[in-house]
Amino acid sequence: MVEAIRYDGEALWLIDQRVLPSVETWVRCDGSVATAEAIRAMVVRGAPAIGITAAYGLAVAVNHGEDRATAHATLLAARPTAVNLRWALERLVAVPDADLADAARAMHDEDIAINRAMGDHGADLVAGATDVYHHCNTGALATGGWGTALGIVRSAVARGHDLHVWVGETRPYLQGARLTAWELLQERIRCTLVADVAAAGLMAAGRVDAVLVGCDRVAANGDTANKVGTLGLAVMAHRYGVPFYVAMPTSTLDRRCPTGAEIPIEERGADEVVGHKGVRWAADVPVFNPAFDVTPAELITAWVTERGPWRPPFPP
Amino acid sequence: MVEAIRYDGEALWLIDQRVLPSVETWVRCDGSVATAEAIRAMVVRGAPAIGITAAYGLAVAVNHGEDRATAHATLLAARPTAVNLRWALERLVAVPDADLADAARAMHDEDIAINRAMGDHGADLVAGATDVYHHCNTGALATGGWGTALGIVRSAVARGHDLHVWVGETRPYLQGARLTAWELLQERIRCTLVADVAAAGLMAAGRVDAVLVGCDRVAANGDTANKVGTLGLAVMAHRYGVPFYVAMPTSTLDRRCPTGAEIPIEERGADEVVGHKGVRWAADVPVFNPAFDVTPAELITAWVTERGPWRPPFPP
Repeated sequence: MVEAIRYDGEALWLIDQRVLPSVETWVRCDGSVATAEAIRAMVVRGAPAIGITAAYGLAVAVNHGEDRATAHATLLAARPTAVNLRWALERLVAVPDADLADAARAMHDEDIAINRAMGDHGADLVAGATDVYHHCNTGALATGGWGTALGIVRSAVARGHDLHVWVGETRPYLQGARLTAWELLQERIRCTLVADVAAAGLMAAGRVDAVLVGCDRVAANGDTANKVGTLGLAVMAHRYGVPFYVAMPTSTLDRRCPTGAEIPIEERGADEVVGHKGVRWAADVPVFNPAFDVTPAELITAWVTERGPWRPPFPP
Repeated sequence: MVEAIRYDGEALWLIDQRVLPSVETWVRCDGSVATAEAIRAMVVRGAPAIGITAAYGLAVAVNHGEDRATAHATLLAARPTAVNLRWALERLVAVPDADLADAARAMHDEDIAINRAMGDHGADLVAGATDVYHHCNTGALATGGWGTALGIVRSAVARGHDLHVWVGETRPYLQGARLTAWELLQERIRCTLVADVAAAGLMAAGRVDAVLVGCDRVAANGDTANKVGTLGLAVMAHRYGVPFYVAMPTSTLDRRCPTGAEIPIEERGADEVVGHKGVRWAADVPVFNPAFDVTPAELITAWVTERGPWRPPFPP
């Protein structure tokens, strides 16, 4: 199993997802500033993985003598859209300093268990599918270790279902091309990489039996923030009658957020769009780079949670 | 004005669009093989530009003593989807050898005149728009010199309309990021580059007043083949009530092709998807890379031709 987050009792180690798959290096975080910076710089990404990272980060910070409130605030400010970051830190508020590391470990184990439960429920939903389309990375790298939307694929394949995955490259940060393709290859799951723009043609041709995505925050009405590009896929899936499933640990539901309109959407730098790793292809042009978009609840067939699929109206 | 195709009386010169905007180099073509290879390798791209290039290529080949039928066949086989290639070569069939160069020049001049007429008609359609979304490159680089969809922008701006253009980067070959952004900057037309996946969010937020695209082949029923990603934009535009305009010189209409289902869709190599210019970001994964997709006529608000806009039913 691919692993992305390790805690050695002293420091937090994160596989550097910025440079995968070409090299595997690990980044050591020994406090809240280093951990927050790793989250901000996307050494680690994926809503559940960010939550677990923040939990370990707080434990490491406090064990190293940092002021707990400051460390909490530093970690909370790292990225604005994923609700799991706030959720994980809030769960630790009542935990005594000495128990933080154990609580973070428990949260990590719990995430894997939740992912496996979600995977089982999702595998039932796609039991008749030949080809699924997957956006971004929602696998072991994005979570505690099994995956949300990609956990559904893992669970299906573990049952002997010979599922084929269309891997959307996921511009601009290429989480699909870099991370999802690599994860699936590691586990010999059949997959084909496509540019994001190829998705509509695949759906129109009847070559997609379901779309599987994760989520970063789900509003109380079911509107779902996820990696930019998700909304377009949902609109296409709706037109072509393709089921659109959001893998959602219930921790991603933000009951305080009434609709998608209230979800803050992070904007990232131009560098992700104008080139890659020092190769620049665009002229010196203004860039707009939202990292997420919001899919309205009405375009979602079901939210696959650890408790089973939730179908509209939302929440059940 | 940006120029992409020059004929010096001896050879055909093409600006190398593979390396724009970082360097401006010109490729010399002194026969059919070199010209066909330049088309295949995308030194030149864009349906109208390919047609003009093929016409000059045939003239150069014949002037250099090549067998005319062989040269014709070599050029015709260069790329399968754009109908303009076939159209341009067929128009030359009855032209005597000695007049081929003049005929190619006339075709080039005619293309610019057609583009300007299309631009005028399109500028009327977007007269009330603040922001338009543009896919691929349909500008001076893709045509004889003014542009089809981007010609509409040029014509609008030439009238004093302060239009802003969302430039879709156009994965996998990045014609938007590399070529359209560069063209617009050259002429100080306001623009913002976005990843293709950002389009749905822009439309949902009401930040797109019209989508402007070109086309590579239009079937007799109006189904329109264009750069991959066009179909997804059309589906999104339809959902959000955004007018979707296809700039179409009437030469792009293929009356022999009844519907979009009969348009051959070129598949290109994996290298365009897994990396860029020697920087590879994806693992060693299977790739599916269709260069085009087909938008059904029902999703198109109007085809903007040199004779005026054609609205459904198609053709008028």
